[in-house]
Amino acid sequence: MEYKFLSKINSPEDIKALSLSELEILSDEIRFKLIDTVSKNGGHLASNLGAVELTIALHKVFDSPYDQIVFDVGHQCYTHKLLTGRYKKFDTLRTKDGISGFCRPGESEHDIFYSGHSGTSVSAGLGLAEAKILNNDNRYVISVIGDGSFTGGMVYEALNNGGRGKARQIIVLNDNKMSISENVGSFAKYLAVIRTKPSYMSFKANTEKVLSKIPMGTGIARELYNLKTDIKNKLYSQSTFFEDLGYRYVGPIDGHDLEQLCSGLKAAKKVDGPVLLHVITTKGKGYEHAEKSPSVFHGISKFDIDTGEPISSGGSFSDKFGEYLCEHAEKDSTICAITAAMKTGTGLEEFSSKHPERFFDVGIAEEHAITFAGGLAKNGMKPIYAVYSTFLQRCYDQIVHDISLQKLKMILAIDRAGFVGEDGETHHGIFDVAFLSTIPDLKIYSPCCYRSLCADINNALYADEYSVAIRYPRGKPHENVSKLRYGCIEMSEYGNEDSNISVVTYGRLTTQAIIAVDELAQEGINVHLISLNQIKPLPAVVLEKLLTKNKIYFFEEGQKNGSVGEMVAFELLVKGYKGEFSLTAIENKFVEQATVEQLLNIYNLDSSSMIKKIRGEF
Amino acid sequence: MEYKFLSKINSPEDIKALSLSELEILSDEIRFKLIDTVSKNGGHLASNLGAVELTIALHKVFDSPYDQIVFDVGHQCYTHKLLTGRYKKFDTLRTKDGISGFCRPGESEHDIFYSGHSGTSVSAGLGLAEAKILNNDNRYVISVIGDGSFTGGMVYEALNNGGRGKARQIIVLNDNKMSISENVGSFAKYLAVIRTKPSYMSFKANTEKVLSKIPMGTGIARELYNLKTDIKNKLYSQSTFFEDLGYRYVGPIDGHDLEQLCSGLKAAKKVDGPVLLHVITTKGKGYEHAEKSPSVFHGISKFDIDTGEPISSGGSFSDKFGEYLCEHAEKDSTICAITAAMKTGTGLEEFSSKHPERFFDVGIAEEHAITFAGGLAKNGMKPIYAVYSTFLQRCYDQIVHDISLQKLKMILAIDRAGFVGEDGETHHGIFDVAFLSTIPDLKIYSPCCYRSLCADINNALYADEYSVAIRYPRGKPHENVSKLRYGCIEMSEYGNEDSNISVVTYGRLTTQAIIAVDELAQEGINVHLISLNQIKPLPAVVLEKLLTKNKIYFFEEGQKNGSVGEMVAFELLVKGYKGEFSLTAIENKFVEQATVEQLLNIYNLDSSSMIKKIRGEF
Repeated sequence: MEYKFLSKINSPEDIKALSLSELEILSDEIRFKLIDTVSKNGGHLASNLGAVELTIALHKVFDSPYDQIVFDVGHQCYTHKLLTGRYKKFDTLRTKDGISGFCRPGESEHDIFYSGHSGTSVSAGLGLAEAKILNNDNRYVISVIGDGSFTGGMVYEALNNGGRGKARQIIVLNDNKMSISENVGSFAKYLAVIRTKPSYMSFKANTEKVLSKIPMGTGIARELYNLKTDIKNKLYSQSTFFEDLGYRYVGPIDGHDLEQLCSGLKAAKKVDGPVLLHVITTKGKGYEHAEKSPSVFHGISKFDIDTGEPISSGGSFSDKFGEYLCEHAEKDSTICAITAAMKTGTGLEEFSSKHPERFFDVGIAEEHAITFAGGLAKNGMKPIYAVYSTFLQRCYDQIVHDISLQKLKMILAIDRAGFVGEDGETHHGIFDVAFLSTIPDLKIYSPCCYRSLCADINNALYADEYSVAIRYPRGKPHENVSKLRYGCIEMSEYGNEDSNISVVTYGRLTTQAIIAVDELAQEGINVHLISLNQIKPLPAVVLEKLLTKNKIYFFEEGQKNGSVGEMVAFELLVKGYKGEFSLTAIENKFVEQATVEQLLNIYNLDSSSMIKKIRGEF
Repeated sequence: MEYKFLSKINSPEDIKALSLSELEILSDEIRFKLIDTVSKNGGHLASNLGAVELTIALHKVFDSPYDQIVFDVGHQCYTHKLLTGRYKKFDTLRTKDGISGFCRPGESEHDIFYSGHSGTSVSAGLGLAEAKILNNDNRYVISVIGDGSFTGGMVYEALNNGGRGKARQIIVLNDNKMSISENVGSFAKYLAVIRTKPSYMSFKANTEKVLSKIPMGTGIARELYNLKTDIKNKLYSQSTFFEDLGYRYVGPIDGHDLEQLCSGLKAAKKVDGPVLLHVITTKGKGYEHAEKSPSVFHGISKFDIDTGEPISSGGSFSDKFGEYLCEHAEKDSTICAITAAMKTGTGLEEFSSKHPERFFDVGIAEEHAITFAGGLAKNGMKPIYAVYSTFLQRCYDQIVHDISLQKLKMILAIDRAGFVGEDGETHHGIFDVAFLSTIPDLKIYSPCCYRSLCADINNALYADEYSVAIRYPRGKPHENVSKLRYGCIEMSEYGNEDSNISVVTYGRLTTQAIIAVDELAQEGINVHLISLNQIKPLPAVVLEKLLTKNKIYFFEEGQKNGSVGEMVAFELLVKGYKGEFSLTAIENKFVEQATVEQLLNIYNLDSSSMIKKIRGEF
């Protein structure tokens, strides 16, 4: 496909010369390119379709990278990528060595901050802007953030900090009335109120005009005069939530009207101090299927452009979790489910429709979710918080202080544990085991199959005394896990139990280890495999078995520091183990984007790497 | 001292019978008791003095524990303790086995949630209230929270979540115009605006009345009529920040007037849904010295009641840090200091007055502080964030995602690392080593003396490539650390290097280990001591030395899981170490309140425990 304008844009400079009508054609071309690429590579579609004109206007009015544009989360940065020299590589989106689906500073000087977690852009932008003051640099910092991210607390911390200062930070609130799913909470309701005013600024001007016509002198007029002062105070000092917090408010503006957008941005530019520009967009704009089902098309795998149907593989740990939780919830009315704006991704659709009174979407508010669960638990409920591993990083203190210390019981259903694949470095779930292991009394399960997942949920609900984390990967289990000899809740085994060589692993890597054990057996190397289901506390039975071995190979899809492998090594050393021990894990680094299969290979965690390791080839 | 009323109060029931004038005498008695006890035991004084009448009114109007009162942070819970059966034990405040300085559920059914970290009460309260709906329990949940805590983001996550629901949660905003130090940010400024209105509710009523008098029919009147509708909309739907977020606003109320307080609370009770009661108090009320210097008397050690002067020991790691940072900042204009409302506690007073343009108090906004630092770093600054270890737990994800992943360099100056003593289980800094160790590229120093502290700051500023954490304990170093043979930035040594027995430790425990080495030497047991200064990455030189030993005793003032000891054990096992290894650390639990000396003994980390361990006595 030939793109008349888009193909010629090598930097933001190239769009400055284009007329409004040419930019409108460019918008269409960009939308076509986005739909085409995401249908093949997967990615964030609906949010990006909504931000096409906004991004064009930003690059027309500002001079990136001298003016620094920080995109929140990065769900809306594809157009930015296309306009900043990455059009030619855009087909590599979300593939190994290709363009990232999020902002990535290493990729372009126009990407100021990595973004993958929500609500960071206002804080980062404020830091950039304060540094500009210290550097006597008068250029702009623009934080572009969705209304969904405004449900996260960090944004308010930043607004509170920035609203009283002098930094020239422009916050563009891209209000598409959606979080990842429908936006929730009172802030969303409030935005709906101010959104309906055709122009808030003109309301102010008009009121001022009318008030000035009130005749003085009469009794009523005197009262009116006093009232007028009060009203003016209200209008000017407290008129919107944002103004209460010290930000000049400009808007609302039609986010698909380039002319309005450019003049809104220019107006914001003229404000000497913190300003918020409120832009209204349509999530999924320009692609019928995405406009109809913006939450389905928020983040999506490959799909058919004509029908909008995903090219799906069917079934996942998430689905099984949701299904099994619903079964329990039918019988147990104390079960409550919590999500931080991830109802669909975490498999809670069915629960939310069957038990709306016990389903809580708290917004993108991961910290609050935990402490809120603590409150539910204190008054007799069984709260289950379903969350992606990478976002649970937000909750460390709350799990320590508001759950573990309080001896309250909740269940953390940790989805996307381990490599997530194409979402890349901001999204891999490779920290949760390490940071959760430090928390007193918290038990951690890492099931490798649906059978274990269900057993873990059951145990967590009715047998375990304290809080429990159950972590499972993206996608579904491989069928070879049915070969395991299911031992107990702590672990399962495979291969030759009498072998002097043990492979130990857990979760998804079990499948790789089974393949390795089978292949090595064919070579005449008998290996014993332990697949841990309970990874904390370490099962005594596992340590006993391992103490009898000569060689132990531990494989782990997570950070080495604080890993289960390290803890096992420690216990073995203290107990006098004299054999060999090796641990293969992620060593002190972030993991790039690629398919899960590619990553397992790169990090020596696939079956062929395991075989080489055990053969002593590296 | 005889307390006429206070001494007879065994439960909140006992105050319900008292008249207003009797309650006023009770207030005086409570103030006297607070000042007397805190002057001897140390604790939070100014905040508690401000909340005396408020707490009395709460217990008069509500029925605790059926109505559940959740105190935020717990800096204002002493009166609550005195009124709920803990008067007789109150002299044990903050001592081993005594009354906690914070809410502690194990202590009383009236303490609903442990609180020691800020901004959790609205989330926890909302969870309690939602559970009450599910339980058909119509009683109240009251969250009592200071304006300082309102600078933290979790509060907004909770307000956003609760403002659109039906839960009967009453939020009492105790507005004393102070955070721990002066309150900062635009929210504080906003509160100052609404605080000045004698009664916001009566303004609304009055406006309504005046508007109703405007005659219809004339041209101006028609315009006015339209305007009137708009104004009414404004007044009723968006009148305050809190109403924007869905909370009925009641206030402001004089927080030292019991009659006003009781009627305000009763008014809040009648609202069927979320409501916020705005109460104005004076921090330090009733004690001249505390009213004058509320931030000094926020949290204080023993002091002289007459003079208000602390009975101080003089000098601390915090002071030395602040002093040394100022020296650098004189020469290096890129150095910026950040605090989350802890200017005094972290030793940044001098920096803040010498370099106000490079000093940032961001409010109690620990998460934002990190990402904000990331922005500063990106634009060429050297941000140093001084923070207590326990509060750094809030920042895990931000350090991972907004600093480490971005390869930005900042310095974490981690104060109160290890046991903090009397503040107890919510405050000990026993997690930071474990959770920080999981973060790629982050170097961690744990100096045991001022010399190392200064070297670490120097290295962190000018030699180290990536971000650095420098963690140091409360108080000052023991003079025996001068005995160490200062080797390199990684470690120092003491005792007999050729001994087969090594003791390894870091930070404050170095002093205990030196005493142990000396005493053992007198018994003829020669021991080698390694005091680590760099605890991550593990120094190769240390591992080399340890591989030659037969017995290694590791002592650590932190969680065992994820500890340095575990990592050392892992490295040794992998490298073929065949000797004995033991680790003494905190095993999977929280640590109670007591003096640091008592805690070192309880957890087998003092010199006498070390000696027994090495002698093989346990």
